[in-house]
Amino acid sequence: MDLKYAERMKQIKGVETREIMRFMGKHDIISFAGGLPAPELFPIEELKQIAVRVLEEHGPAALQYMVTEGYLPLREKIAQRMGKMGVTVSVDNILIINGAQQGIDFSGKLFLNPNDVVICAKPSYLGAIAAFRTYQAQFVGISIDNNGMKLDELENVLATTSNVKLIYVTPDFQNPTGLTWSAKRREKLIEIANKYNLPIIEDNPYGELRYEGEKINPIKSYDTEGRVIFLGTFSKILCPGFRIAWICADKDIIKKYVLIKEPADIQCNSMTQREVTLFLEEYNIDAHIEKIIKFYRQRRDVMVKMIKEEFPPEAKYSIPEGGLFIWVVLPEQVNARTLLEKAQEQKVAFVPGGSFYPNKDQENSMRLNFSNMPEEKIIEGMKRLAKLLHQELKN
Amino acid sequence: MDLKYAERMKQIKGVETREIMRFMGKHDIISFAGGLPAPELFPIEELKQIAVRVLEEHGPAALQYMVTEGYLPLREKIAQRMGKMGVTVSVDNILIINGAQQGIDFSGKLFLNPNDVVICAKPSYLGAIAAFRTYQAQFVGISIDNNGMKLDELENVLATTSNVKLIYVTPDFQNPTGLTWSAKRREKLIEIANKYNLPIIEDNPYGELRYEGEKINPIKSYDTEGRVIFLGTFSKILCPGFRIAWICADKDIIKKYVLIKEPADIQCNSMTQREVTLFLEEYNIDAHIEKIIKFYRQRRDVMVKMIKEEFPPEAKYSIPEGGLFIWVVLPEQVNARTLLEKAQEQKVAFVPGGSFYPNKDQENSMRLNFSNMPEEKIIEGMKRLAKLLHQELKN
Repeated sequence: MDLKYAERMKQIKGVETREIMRFMGKHDIISFAGGLPAPELFPIEELKQIAVRVLEEHGPAALQYMVTEGYLPLREKIAQRMGKMGVTVSVDNILIINGAQQGIDFSGKLFLNPNDVVICAKPSYLGAIAAFRTYQAQFVGISIDNNGMKLDELENVLATTSNVKLIYVTPDFQNPTGLTWSAKRREKLIEIANKYNLPIIEDNPYGELRYEGEKINPIKSYDTEGRVIFLGTFSKILCPGFRIAWICADKDIIKKYVLIKEPADIQCNSMTQREVTLFLEEYNIDAHIEKIIKFYRQRRDVMVKMIKEEFPPEAKYSIPEGGLFIWVVLPEQVNARTLLEKAQEQKVAFVPGGSFYPNKDQENSMRLNFSNMPEEKIIEGMKRLAKLLHQELKN
Repeated sequence: MDLKYAERMKQIKGVETREIMRFMGKHDIISFAGGLPAPELFPIEELKQIAVRVLEEHGPAALQYMVTEGYLPLREKIAQRMGKMGVTVSVDNILIINGAQQGIDFSGKLFLNPNDVVICAKPSYLGAIAAFRTYQAQFVGISIDNNGMKLDELENVLATTSNVKLIYVTPDFQNPTGLTWSAKRREKLIEIANKYNLPIIEDNPYGELRYEGEKINPIKSYDTEGRVIFLGTFSKILCPGFRIAWICADKDIIKKYVLIKEPADIQCNSMTQREVTLFLEEYNIDAHIEKIIKFYRQRRDVMVKMIKEEFPPEAKYSIPEGGLFIWVVLPEQVNARTLLEKAQEQKVAFVPGGSFYPNKDQENSMRLNFSNMPEEKIIEGMKRLAKLLHQELKN
């Protein structure tokens, strides 16, 4: 049987990290592939008490339908947290969504006609590229350096490209490179977006996980005209299994996202939204984040040490000030996809860098996650990778 | 600031039941509007124990990322339940989604190009019409009678309409009419869909809530070529706040839905999926459904009695054998939208029938929900509505 699918399906293929995840489920593997938090840090005891309390105190309301916008006290709490990041907003600026990924998908739905152009960093989060592709987007990738996106390159592209409909950025500890934008670049991006009247999707899953250096407020805090659509999430600071995240944007833009969410899936989980709210009310999430930071900083340091000591000197990398990933650029003759196949035989996984380029590019890079594996596995896995790399460079 | 939105946004407007829900949140109103289950029946005590047990027995896995397809033991349980409905399937035929609404949305994404035609009953579930509209669908509505969709009318349409891409049906206790298809019509629909090589989306949220008459298996059970995409949900038999539902389809079609779900929102809630599974394992959901049936049958009977005794005889209705709704057709001069405004002043809500027509039609009808309100409120609300109707007919 051969049904007629929509045109967009021709552009949709599996998201590589999810494919690797499926592989992981089947094997005892050391994985630097996913962006998974450390399971040791999930506040299980607290969430156990919270689940019981939510059902006792909220009763059936915790299990019933609710408004699409989300649970009001949660939106209030989030608006307050945004305030601490220099973004002054109210509940009308917040919509609760099923993971920040849904915010990316809805942004594609809101802004993109087929063949519209999305501007993003080169490389960028592969899940975002995949989501925009489902709306038949074209991509123009802009180079990045240690201070963020190269904005003169961006200006050149905007001056010469028609149909650009949105700019997608991850300014904090970017996935996959770990790079962070300077305050100056953030401010400058707003100027450019104002000039070209473009919305900016600021994807910020790791912003609160800074291990060193000075805190820089989100691009949204520099927004002068309400064109930044900020995506935040509890996935990396509480747990990803709950699928609770938010969009923070101008209130008229939020209304459009609500119109998209209604027919897409009606609302987020009524009980989980209350659980997250009670966690924020009764426990100190900032202390919890401090704990995560200490833990991940240590894992990052172990991974960096292993690269320094074991990897061939031709492997270039930079030390991320936060987030979950280290980006390694290998000599040009090394194809990371081929390397992955060999690594999987050795029961080690990572994501080949080529997957993060919207258009084909740099196959000689790899993204390494350091948050998920315990130190002894990081050490062992990195040794195996180093061995493969040395062999690769000998060939 | 005036951003450029996608073309599709021109066709997207609020889903009427959600608008009414927002109104409800603010007032002490007797609502026959939403399709809300009776909150008294949510198994709160059981779910409290289950939440604790899931966290104790599954630990961090209940809070971590998992595969997009969903929690394997839940998919197994669902495959078994499908078997009891005469649909023999395995886990490969099941994808877990955030409410059946997401299954409708994903079906639009999978099959529809702009201006493609969706065939549906006239009237149909307004959330489905809204979801398909976001993919810029056109609609052809087919009349229904007491045995289901009029299939000779369907055949005429298919023979003369190009670009038909899918058939959307709710054969059991249809929303909004409460009508149920005969076995013969189900079988015949498969023949027609086979002939025209069309997928059938069988939306089945209420199938297990039958108050009288003989059980009829889903259209999926008559499927000879794997073209029926069945949407099931726990919203009406457990609770809607959990947002746990499923797609049951041919395994190659399920793979396409997985490709859509990955970039849309990655996966459903890891903990809630386990909670539902444990409920299915440890408690008797069929006994729970029996309890719901007894309860709702009583509420239906009270509402029917009130219509019979209080409504003007010009109001026509049929008694649904199951589900959540009674459909009332009023004399042609009555506009149900105007009536709703007056009813809201009297703190009673319902959904005007016109909202359920993909193209403008029958404004003189109303959908009444009987599952959500206790008997005394049904009696009081129906009295108020009856009074308004008598006034309306005098004018």
